[in-house]
Amino acid sequence: MTFSSDNLIGGERVPGAGAPWRAVEAATGSALEPAFASATAEQAERACALAAEAFDTYRETPLQARADFLDAIARNILDLGDDLVTRCMAETGLPRPRIEGERGRTVGQLRMFAEVVRRGAFLGLRVDPAQPERKPLPRPDLRLRRIAVGPVLVFGASNFPLAFSVAGGDTASALAAGCPVIVKAHPAHPGTSALVGGAIQRAVAECGLPAGVFALLFEEGIAIGQRLAADPRVAAIGFTGSRRGGTALMQIAATRATPIPVYAEMSSINPVVLMPAALQARGAEIGKAFVASLTLGSGQFCTNPGLVLAVDGPGLDAFLAAASEALPNVAAATMLTPGIHKAYCEGVAALESNPAVERVAQGQEGTGQQGQPVLFATTGAAFRADHRLGEEVFGAASLVVRCADTNELRAVLEGLEGQLTAALHMDPSDHVETRGLLPVLERKVGRILVNGFGTGVEVGHAMVHGGPFPATSDGRTTSVGSLAIDRFLRPVSYQDMPEALLPEALTDANPAQLPRSVDGA
Amino acid sequence: MTFSSDNLIGGERVPGAGAPWRAVEAATGSALEPAFASATAEQAERACALAAEAFDTYRETPLQARADFLDAIARNILDLGDDLVTRCMAETGLPRPRIEGERGRTVGQLRMFAEVVRRGAFLGLRVDPAQPERKPLPRPDLRLRRIAVGPVLVFGASNFPLAFSVAGGDTASALAAGCPVIVKAHPAHPGTSALVGGAIQRAVAECGLPAGVFALLFEEGIAIGQRLAADPRVAAIGFTGSRRGGTALMQIAATRATPIPVYAEMSSINPVVLMPAALQARGAEIGKAFVASLTLGSGQFCTNPGLVLAVDGPGLDAFLAAASEALPNVAAATMLTPGIHKAYCEGVAALESNPAVERVAQGQEGTGQQGQPVLFATTGAAFRADHRLGEEVFGAASLVVRCADTNELRAVLEGLEGQLTAALHMDPSDHVETRGLLPVLERKVGRILVNGFGTGVEVGHAMVHGGPFPATSDGRTTSVGSLAIDRFLRPVSYQDMPEALLPEALTDANPAQLPRSVDGA
Repeated sequence: MTFSSDNLIGGERVPGAGAPWRAVEAATGSALEPAFASATAEQAERACALAAEAFDTYRETPLQARADFLDAIARNILDLGDDLVTRCMAETGLPRPRIEGERGRTVGQLRMFAEVVRRGAFLGLRVDPAQPERKPLPRPDLRLRRIAVGPVLVFGASNFPLAFSVAGGDTASALAAGCPVIVKAHPAHPGTSALVGGAIQRAVAECGLPAGVFALLFEEGIAIGQRLAADPRVAAIGFTGSRRGGTALMQIAATRATPIPVYAEMSSINPVVLMPAALQARGAEIGKAFVASLTLGSGQFCTNPGLVLAVDGPGLDAFLAAASEALPNVAAATMLTPGIHKAYCEGVAALESNPAVERVAQGQEGTGQQGQPVLFATTGAAFRADHRLGEEVFGAASLVVRCADTNELRAVLEGLEGQLTAALHMDPSDHVETRGLLPVLERKVGRILVNGFGTGVEVGHAMVHGGPFPATSDGRTTSVGSLAIDRFLRPVSYQDMPEALLPEALTDANPAQLPRSVDGA
Repeated sequence: MTFSSDNLIGGERVPGAGAPWRAVEAATGSALEPAFASATAEQAERACALAAEAFDTYRETPLQARADFLDAIARNILDLGDDLVTRCMAETGLPRPRIEGERGRTVGQLRMFAEVVRRGAFLGLRVDPAQPERKPLPRPDLRLRRIAVGPVLVFGASNFPLAFSVAGGDTASALAAGCPVIVKAHPAHPGTSALVGGAIQRAVAECGLPAGVFALLFEEGIAIGQRLAADPRVAAIGFTGSRRGGTALMQIAATRATPIPVYAEMSSINPVVLMPAALQARGAEIGKAFVASLTLGSGQFCTNPGLVLAVDGPGLDAFLAAASEALPNVAAATMLTPGIHKAYCEGVAALESNPAVERVAQGQEGTGQQGQPVLFATTGAAFRADHRLGEEVFGAASLVVRCADTNELRAVLEGLEGQLTAALHMDPSDHVETRGLLPVLERKVGRILVNGFGTGVEVGHAMVHGGPFPATSDGRTTSVGSLAIDRFLRPVSYQDMPEALLPEALTDANPAQLPRSVDGA
């Protein structure tokens, strides 16, 4: 398939400027056609102006029309067919089943948000009827709805070229909330981004929405992204990526004349806690399953199990023996970008050279941009003494911490920074001991899961893909699941507003019969 | 009544250190007994340690017990009787009816949150049941609840010595959410703070809660407050005060090793828009009501009407004539503190000396710490050309902007910063024109009210006392009303957790029959 490498602004294709650059085939390192040219400052300015202009219209789009728009995006993405899959495979090095699965997830997210929009509960409608007879003062009529915050800037993620990029979770939830979206494409998969961006742009036109509802800008560097983050018309930012990138955006957002929220999903090592009875009963089995989770997608998941905690003993030995037997059979796999590969190699080298850390096992050696899986071990005391051991190494590397006893294990957990997930492996006879760890885990993570691994994030209503800093910039939210729509809404209250001027959802008539609470019930 | 001037930490009275200082009687400037001594760094440290220690226990307090605690605080405040009222009047210069009304509001807030806690909807419970047969992958069991964020630091407000101070809205909503609270008392009303703090401390003991659930620290300066804001155990901050103070806290919070949310309610001039038909029909009547709202409580409300917008013409002349007739009859009233009085005088002087601004009328001259009400006027063009005219002058000063036409009025609104409220005065024949202004107002303010003034903030479920920056630091929330509890919660998801280890509210049994959504419905 041929596709345009132009920026998409205001319903048009707009060629960028400056030195042309190309995507790189991850597996071979060779350049992929066509060439891209980065968006200019004027183009970024125009995208913001159009988004601001479209905002009042788009946020009042009837819910059914907004839901149809999300469904149209999903349909248009599927209509791209295999061209999208092959281009995405080339740019990311990820295998076909993964990309096809991720496409299904992306389309599923859009359709889930369409359903959330149709239901209308996200509006948070509240009515406190007037009480003209109340003493000493009459009570006014008060009605509340949540409205969209404004244009949202979304940064495509390198590790989810579909599900967290141009039409990914951030875009879907922002559009569902009623926010125009400006996407800064990740430079590692510009072709994938262009294809998906075209699908959204067509949906905007098909649904008769203002063209400013969506823009896609390309850039090889970071200046345009920073400029967009600082633009006064941008009301919120969605980001998935490195801690360095996320905290840089947080700083820009906090020092603007008008600070704005940043939803950055950043760094997490996702502790796996192996409880004694489970280890004793099936340490080897857990070890095998762990290696499968660790090496999935070359370990390039935010929920990759980068830390394993257990009380030392024969159960942990069985776990390690099984993991050490399984890991050497795992082939090195192509990583997403040269930069990610380099950072992985450096992170692994730092652990290799740390005298308190021993290498337990490794996968097969790779070539070029392939990452070699590796498993390290250390002691609880060493881990607690060196905060560097708690830093994320993005890729298929993990560190087993042998704890002297449950108290030390608990202390290690208490010392951790915020995390996306914690996984507990346990049997019924571990319940009592596990109960004591749960309060710690609740304070540290967004999702606690049992007898599984964090990789594989279900898109649903009860999912939290979030967690305290630095897992995310804002632990009060999630970036996966229907609750993510909350990030892009703010409440507005109407007092004694005549029925004729109230938003339809707040009128006495409530023609769409949307769910509302009355006097808090 | 005699009361202790000690800090309240860990269920004990703890004397501060350093130079003693006293509250000042607002009306006379004379010092009030007893002397206070500021909390030390070690005492601040201990309050944080105890709050963190109490957190896991307090946040799992059964809902009924937590609600009873809030009710006990309300009861204990009422039990302080007239001693609280007289001390509060002396420290603030506010008249008895205002203080008694504010006490009723404070007690009402606590009881409303008790009811919110009992209902349990604030937990946001969600269940997505497992689908073991789903293809290609089984769906896990996912259950979500919201938990308290951690210890909350509350700064007492100068202008609401009860409703937004030690047991005010921030404290009530944080305690309701399950957060221990550390209050930094406002130095302008330490005696009021000590009395109310004692009421809370007694409630903690009566309800058998961990003593770290509540602490009250005194300080004449700002160093201890800043230290508390930077303490790693503090998870969120509530503040009502100046833009300077609020943005300083925002900066501390954003540059901590672990950034935290700040809910600062700061600066707002609360535009009042007078529509043509309403002005024509009853410009004089609106003018009289406006003067009453402007001068209420010496204008020391966040929702004080500091800006009036209308299209120039006979209707506006009638409004101004009525206001000019009413204002000279209004006596100057004692302001809260010497600092607030000084800032008010400086703000008024700056407007007086602005060649584009004319003084329309003023109230009676005052003495000492009394503020003289004043009304200014300018043109739409002048207002748009000078951003200083849009800055808050805290007190009974307001600026009327004569707009050439509706387009200019709309442009003035578009140029405003975020506001807490906007008030529309209109008649049915103004509806069409008003409809065009509503989208602008929705983007700018937290509450839009019709044929009234923003002063008088109803405590209810549909109230928003918030708004875009700089009205508040976080326009996604409210600081008044039941929705304020959302500020201190974050979601946690439990995946495949055995029934025996699930939080009770998420078990299949759901013994308290709390409201939950299942699969999003």
